[in-house]
Amino acid sequence: MSFGKSFRSHFPYLDPSVTPVNHGSFGLTPGCVIEQQKRVSEAHESYSDRFHFSDAEHLYARQIQALARYLRLDPRNLALVTNATCGVNTVLRSIKWDFSRDKVLVHSTSYTSCANTVKFLADYYGLRYDVVKLDYPIEDSDLLTRFHEKLATGNYRLCMFDLISSMPGVMLPCEQLIQLCKQHDVLSLVDGAHGAGLVDLQFLDTLQPDFFTTNLHKWLSAPKSCGLLYVNPKHHSTIQTLPISWNYSNQNCQYIPNPTTAEDRLQNENLMHNKFWFVGTMNYAQYFSIEEALKFREETCGGEDRIREYQWQLQREAVPLIVAEFGPGARLLQNSTNTLAVAGMFNVNIPLPEKYSALKQKLASDPYYFMDFKQKCFALMFSRKAFLPFIYHNGELWVRFSVQVYNELEDYKIGARSIKSAVMEVLDAEHGA
Amino acid sequence: MSFGKSFRSHFPYLDPSVTPVNHGSFGLTPGCVIEQQKRVSEAHESYSDRFHFSDAEHLYARQIQALARYLRLDPRNLALVTNATCGVNTVLRSIKWDFSRDKVLVHSTSYTSCANTVKFLADYYGLRYDVVKLDYPIEDSDLLTRFHEKLATGNYRLCMFDLISSMPGVMLPCEQLIQLCKQHDVLSLVDGAHGAGLVDLQFLDTLQPDFFTTNLHKWLSAPKSCGLLYVNPKHHSTIQTLPISWNYSNQNCQYIPNPTTAEDRLQNENLMHNKFWFVGTMNYAQYFSIEEALKFREETCGGEDRIREYQWQLQREAVPLIVAEFGPGARLLQNSTNTLAVAGMFNVNIPLPEKYSALKQKLASDPYYFMDFKQKCFALMFSRKAFLPFIYHNGELWVRFSVQVYNELEDYKIGARSIKSAVMEVLDAEHGA
Repeated sequence: MSFGKSFRSHFPYLDPSVTPVNHGSFGLTPGCVIEQQKRVSEAHESYSDRFHFSDAEHLYARQIQALARYLRLDPRNLALVTNATCGVNTVLRSIKWDFSRDKVLVHSTSYTSCANTVKFLADYYGLRYDVVKLDYPIEDSDLLTRFHEKLATGNYRLCMFDLISSMPGVMLPCEQLIQLCKQHDVLSLVDGAHGAGLVDLQFLDTLQPDFFTTNLHKWLSAPKSCGLLYVNPKHHSTIQTLPISWNYSNQNCQYIPNPTTAEDRLQNENLMHNKFWFVGTMNYAQYFSIEEALKFREETCGGEDRIREYQWQLQREAVPLIVAEFGPGARLLQNSTNTLAVAGMFNVNIPLPEKYSALKQKLASDPYYFMDFKQKCFALMFSRKAFLPFIYHNGELWVRFSVQVYNELEDYKIGARSIKSAVMEVLDAEHGA
Repeated sequence: MSFGKSFRSHFPYLDPSVTPVNHGSFGLTPGCVIEQQKRVSEAHESYSDRFHFSDAEHLYARQIQALARYLRLDPRNLALVTNATCGVNTVLRSIKWDFSRDKVLVHSTSYTSCANTVKFLADYYGLRYDVVKLDYPIEDSDLLTRFHEKLATGNYRLCMFDLISSMPGVMLPCEQLIQLCKQHDVLSLVDGAHGAGLVDLQFLDTLQPDFFTTNLHKWLSAPKSCGLLYVNPKHHSTIQTLPISWNYSNQNCQYIPNPTTAEDRLQNENLMHNKFWFVGTMNYAQYFSIEEALKFREETCGGEDRIREYQWQLQREAVPLIVAEFGPGARLLQNSTNTLAVAGMFNVNIPLPEKYSALKQKLASDPYYFMDFKQKCFALMFSRKAFLPFIYHNGELWVRFSVQVYNELEDYKIGARSIKSAVMEVLDAEHGA
């Protein structure tokens, strides 16, 4: 079946009156994956004791194996986590910090929850941190210089950066940033929330960052919510599950410093599995539907290349249409080397008339005013059933559009009109107020 | 409809060939609650943007309100968490520890995951801890003396103890322990994993411990997995979600030290809600089925009193039957004031023949041998579809039986035979080996 609106038949739970142009926030799960999730829940209820004590470990291992095959990664470095924020929390909260000395580097466009985790460790335990300011559109070379200047000071133990930022939805030169961290002997923690299903992740095994995490429910068709955590082998012994659970004290979860037997070596290689397969009683149905999600992408969608090709093609057609809807001054958020947009996400600004300059000033300077403004626009877009997220960044209102296999050109006209009219309506009301 | 085997029709996903005598480990969810969970998942998929940004907060608040009404607790002190272990982790990992000075007190029968969390904080950041050794059957007065002796030293910042321990499944004099902590100015963290649905929790609002957490999927008929966290008002400003999420930096999540307006006071009262209603993209379907679970207990089961009455009645009949099956020397785990057994759980020992004394020694002294032994017994019980958990404690093999509304006397005969034959078979094989 060809992609586009007719492909929505694979997503039977989607309200047909909704125009889904915001895949990036929460993903949308194929019907076959939701059905699998229900089957797992029912199997779980049918005999919980056996499910937990006997079946679950095997089912967990199968998902990791399937992911490793599909993403072409070494399964021994992978673990399932609830989502990318949990992945980041898992790492940041099981590093043996020296709170009196250690410092972390983040960037101004880091995902709020992840930046908050660093801020929490600072507020509660004294971890120090600095922020690299990023103003889009930015050249990769400029971005790398800003990170380099900080990292070269030798002040940092860890640097957390995005593969693809959330708002605006843009790609960072992640591979160079990993190398930069290595060069300066700084731990790299990559927030790849939007990675799996949008970007080839094989660089993980070649570049070997210290830590990487991605959601699987956003772009890889898994149910809400699944995340993947990659941990460099040298940290397998350090990183612990969130919450700390049964396995923390298990014999087979302890790293053996100088393994002499094959059994010892095997234990060291299996640490990630042994620690992460069980983190207490929870709903494992989403995890155990990952294989089904990969099958959907491979068999029903025809694989990652075909998906990406469709996304790029549709994006190319959608941009001029949106720019025309948004009016003079609207443009794609892009730099000179065309590295910012990704297959599934791009950003276009809504030019705001000069008469709103005072309001623009307020949107830029008062985060609480912006939040309130955003909520009003959201409500209007919900009622129109065409929702798009946006931010006020570097003097412009940037709208993030998502592109997925169930989209077609018409969606972007509907989406662009929905958000433009919502923004203008709220601005008008605020201006008049 | 009367309780017993016929009541199993309300649990349509239970494998009918299974004898469910281990409710305590994972709970069993009524069919109507599972159906509600599916409906929520589908609603979530139908329009994720609106679900997350608009519906979820209201749905979350409704569950808290329903729980507060049902458990007769102040809703402002409550938050939903994934399970009790997550509740314990939430607390232990957002206390502003002074790692160089602070010390924690736990007991030897603390739940492994929770004890592990303390151990982790010790291993990674230097938190110190001590363990009160408990050997069952123990008199409450003796237990209280052991805690008192430690707490009176003034060495502890926090004491973590169970309301009902997992293994053996016994009640602790929780109210007196809370008072003991208050008396010695030590923070109390109560692991009430088995609390909701087995014990009246109104003591929380009268005694006001510092922290309390319970599962809702074990005994309160909620889906896997839901937990409730109670936080004393004086700690609402300190405790943060696990993982740290969006709300950490929200204006409405900040405590206002000297509130002067009604709005400020309201914000301080709503801190738990404002922080905990959203912790990122995850499956909220289990949370949003809690109301349905309470309706099941109230309307279909006839309320907590009727449930508890049935559990006690059935337990009274089951004990002599099990004792007869287990043979001479078998007895209920109980103390002189009859405070150990709870409505839904009790323990009976399997007397082990003298010829196994060397193996008994090994079971008592080598935790890894015990784990291996347990796994072998588990496999046999799975194949017999009548599973019971057990521990080797204080020189005896104690089996934990659960009592739930779908049980009847026959189940305990089947269960007792399943575990006795499994244990004897494995002992025989080990003895011969």
